[in-house]
Amino acid sequence: MDITSWLDDLGALLDPAGLLRPDQGLSPAVCEPFELDWRRRYRGQALAIARPATVEQVRTVVRACAAEGIALIPQGGNTGLVGGSIPDGSGRQLLLNLTRLHQVRGVDPANLTLTVDAGCTLAQVQQAAQDHGLLFPLSLASEGSCTIGGNLATNAGGTQVLRYGTARELCLGLEVVTASGALWSSLSGLRKDNTGYDLRDLFIGSEGTLGVITAATLRLYPRPRGQATALAACDSLHGAVALLSRARAHLDAGLTAFEAMGRLPLDLVARHHPDIARCADSLRRGDQLPPWAVLIEHASTESQDHAEARLQALLGDALDAGEITNASLATNESQRQALWHLRETIPLAERTEGLMVKHDIAVPTSAIPAFVAQAGQQLQARWPDSRVVCFGHLGDGNLHYNVQPPAGQASAEALQSFEHQANQVVFDLVDRFGGTLSAEHGIGQLRRDELARRKPPEALTMMRAIKQALDPQGLFNPGRVL
Amino acid sequence: MDITSWLDDLGALLDPAGLLRPDQGLSPAVCEPFELDWRRRYRGQALAIARPATVEQVRTVVRACAAEGIALIPQGGNTGLVGGSIPDGSGRQLLLNLTRLHQVRGVDPANLTLTVDAGCTLAQVQQAAQDHGLLFPLSLASEGSCTIGGNLATNAGGTQVLRYGTARELCLGLEVVTASGALWSSLSGLRKDNTGYDLRDLFIGSEGTLGVITAATLRLYPRPRGQATALAACDSLHGAVALLSRARAHLDAGLTAFEAMGRLPLDLVARHHPDIARCADSLRRGDQLPPWAVLIEHASTESQDHAEARLQALLGDALDAGEITNASLATNESQRQALWHLRETIPLAERTEGLMVKHDIAVPTSAIPAFVAQAGQQLQARWPDSRVVCFGHLGDGNLHYNVQPPAGQASAEALQSFEHQANQVVFDLVDRFGGTLSAEHGIGQLRRDELARRKPPEALTMMRAIKQALDPQGLFNPGRVL
Repeated sequence: MDITSWLDDLGALLDPAGLLRPDQGLSPAVCEPFELDWRRRYRGQALAIARPATVEQVRTVVRACAAEGIALIPQGGNTGLVGGSIPDGSGRQLLLNLTRLHQVRGVDPANLTLTVDAGCTLAQVQQAAQDHGLLFPLSLASEGSCTIGGNLATNAGGTQVLRYGTARELCLGLEVVTASGALWSSLSGLRKDNTGYDLRDLFIGSEGTLGVITAATLRLYPRPRGQATALAACDSLHGAVALLSRARAHLDAGLTAFEAMGRLPLDLVARHHPDIARCADSLRRGDQLPPWAVLIEHASTESQDHAEARLQALLGDALDAGEITNASLATNESQRQALWHLRETIPLAERTEGLMVKHDIAVPTSAIPAFVAQAGQQLQARWPDSRVVCFGHLGDGNLHYNVQPPAGQASAEALQSFEHQANQVVFDLVDRFGGTLSAEHGIGQLRRDELARRKPPEALTMMRAIKQALDPQGLFNPGRVL
Repeated sequence: MDITSWLDDLGALLDPAGLLRPDQGLSPAVCEPFELDWRRRYRGQALAIARPATVEQVRTVVRACAAEGIALIPQGGNTGLVGGSIPDGSGRQLLLNLTRLHQVRGVDPANLTLTVDAGCTLAQVQQAAQDHGLLFPLSLASEGSCTIGGNLATNAGGTQVLRYGTARELCLGLEVVTASGALWSSLSGLRKDNTGYDLRDLFIGSEGTLGVITAATLRLYPRPRGQATALAACDSLHGAVALLSRARAHLDAGLTAFEAMGRLPLDLVARHHPDIARCADSLRRGDQLPPWAVLIEHASTESQDHAEARLQALLGDALDAGEITNASLATNESQRQALWHLRETIPLAERTEGLMVKHDIAVPTSAIPAFVAQAGQQLQARWPDSRVVCFGHLGDGNLHYNVQPPAGQASAEALQSFEHQANQVVFDLVDRFGGTLSAEHGIGQLRRDELARRKPPEALTMMRAIKQALDPQGLFNPGRVL
């Protein structure tokens, strides 16, 4: 095959903006946003960057690739954290960027659903819901640039999973281009449909290895009438987990967020962004921030007063029970946002502080105190200078458990070796507690080998059989996940 | 192969109660509960009935069948409505009944999960949760005899889907014996786990065609502190749908049930079970029951008073808006149960009234009034004497849309022909409204041909590829679903 004429033919089938071709002198600066990942760990080189403007054009691209056995890397906003949407360095994989498919196709308020193109940003989807007085509750740091197609392909989580579930639970139907270039549409607004295998959930979370998601029908929710947010101090994670049980029993679905932050991440924010950390000052004892702080949020369908009263009552009970030592309730919207800002600034403060070996793990919430205690002991015993920056979605059992390497490991090799060894300590313990090595970020390139080592062989066998069944040529995102 | 010695060998690998053999003079009365389906539409004849007492015995049975290519029909409580767990009449399929696997393996209250064997009845699972002060919210008419394995294999729905989702949404992890006899265990108590393809949801709802579910880890919820239930009268389905939107906005997750009943099903209960229908008397105008009645339930995490006050306020607003014409709030537990009894007696009243052609359909809730109007017109035009008994889970868009044949079609052939034609009218319209021909009952034998006709060919192609990938010999429940 003459690749240049193949590209010429493909370009002729798309519109002028539909195919970016590095072989025609495209500047690397134009390619970089597509070829370099968010965390700057993976830099690929694409054969070309296809940017179809219609679903039919997506099918055209897939069929052209299928005909010549050219691998395809689907990509949304390129905000993934595991290198799952970056081509390899061979220059032989076609990058298929979906961001030009960005129409809101329709909203059905009485059915509480909306249907959107895969390339809509998450913020755009949220806005479309808000325009109808409704809520699309998925919310992540990258919501301004990540796409809903990417959110679904990676089953994104975020800050409201506790109440509303992950991207999977928020999706009712998909439109997908399959490996043969066929279009499977199940853009259903149905909450119940028992007609055969659950193909939707197979594509969700498959990280672009089984098909290309081109549109989705999503669940909407009524907007709460009141939202109360507080920061509570705990002496231990046991206290935080007890508070979680109490909060669930008292608030049930009204509990929309339960985020834990260890002292070290709080200290890092205080050091690098002192203004932002000020909202935690009332929790200090002496000059120390508490061992753990919990950001807890209650949404009420009744009123702001009701939201605050119920949260205050909960915190009072938790104080009496000794689960928390102190708490501060936001009394207006700017205080509320300040608390969230504290939580959301942690990754930035980490970056300023220096390199971190990051883990996005989950264990059953009941096991979190024991996991954190044992992991800390093991890391400390092996690397006395290392430090653990631990925070995250405690309500989901999901912790961002990050390890700062000991000083004096400045070389890339030493760091890489430390990273590998720290991973093994953390993941061995995760396995022992029945946890997962990737709660929300996915597998991509970053965790592929680890997955092959740690996933039960029966599961890997079935995953490979399914991949072979739906993508027999191995066209879609090869070398990712499996 | 000598089938008798194969059965001898298999029996020797199980315990004495582990294999029931019709070829050894087993009385048909013993076999009937296994071979005749709940609705008495399908009567099969099993080669033998395996009743393993351990997961290892399940694997033994599957491996023995795989070695000789003998088909296996997994069965739980045998309460399905589509003939999905009944062997065919050949006497060559092995029935694999799971009801001897009935241990509660463990409860983790702090993680809000429990793990149970597949053969536990749904009532047993509910009780295990209640013993810890918690709630397992799946609830169906057959809960005393259906098994959780069957509930998961068929993705059961029931009366609280609106709040808690179907069986799928209530399951966090599975243990499954695969077609090769391997054991895949993912009995995870994790709410987030993005490590590869969603195998769990592939087995859920696959009706025993891909593997045998032997255990599951399930989500638990706090028990509400108050539950208020009312029966509201609506002049039209438009009013009922408007009430639904209002109820969602006011109560959000507090809205745990929204069941609609047309006048005809109410009349049938009044005719055949007058005592049970009495709770609807306050809704009569003259001597007429209303065109539609809605059973609406609000669960509160606060108190019984709160549950009632909020529901009362909602109904007051709906009265003012003209969405309902009247309502009666249950003021004690026995009144509450009387309202549910009314709803749950409809199928019994139907049975007393005579034959019904039953449909378990869903359309987007916004489309329900138009669907019901058009379906009624079309049926009426073609069969002026036919009558529609329509009721169901309006909050999920799911209606039991049953058609009573016109008088004078007494022969089995005439009825069968009517059934087929009425199905086509209803399903054609369901398709036009983007609905489903099976919202909760599944496909089994009953809807297999209809599925093949109406499911998009791209979906069928993928389903067949997956079946081939996971069960290449076609051992599990052949001829069901696909």
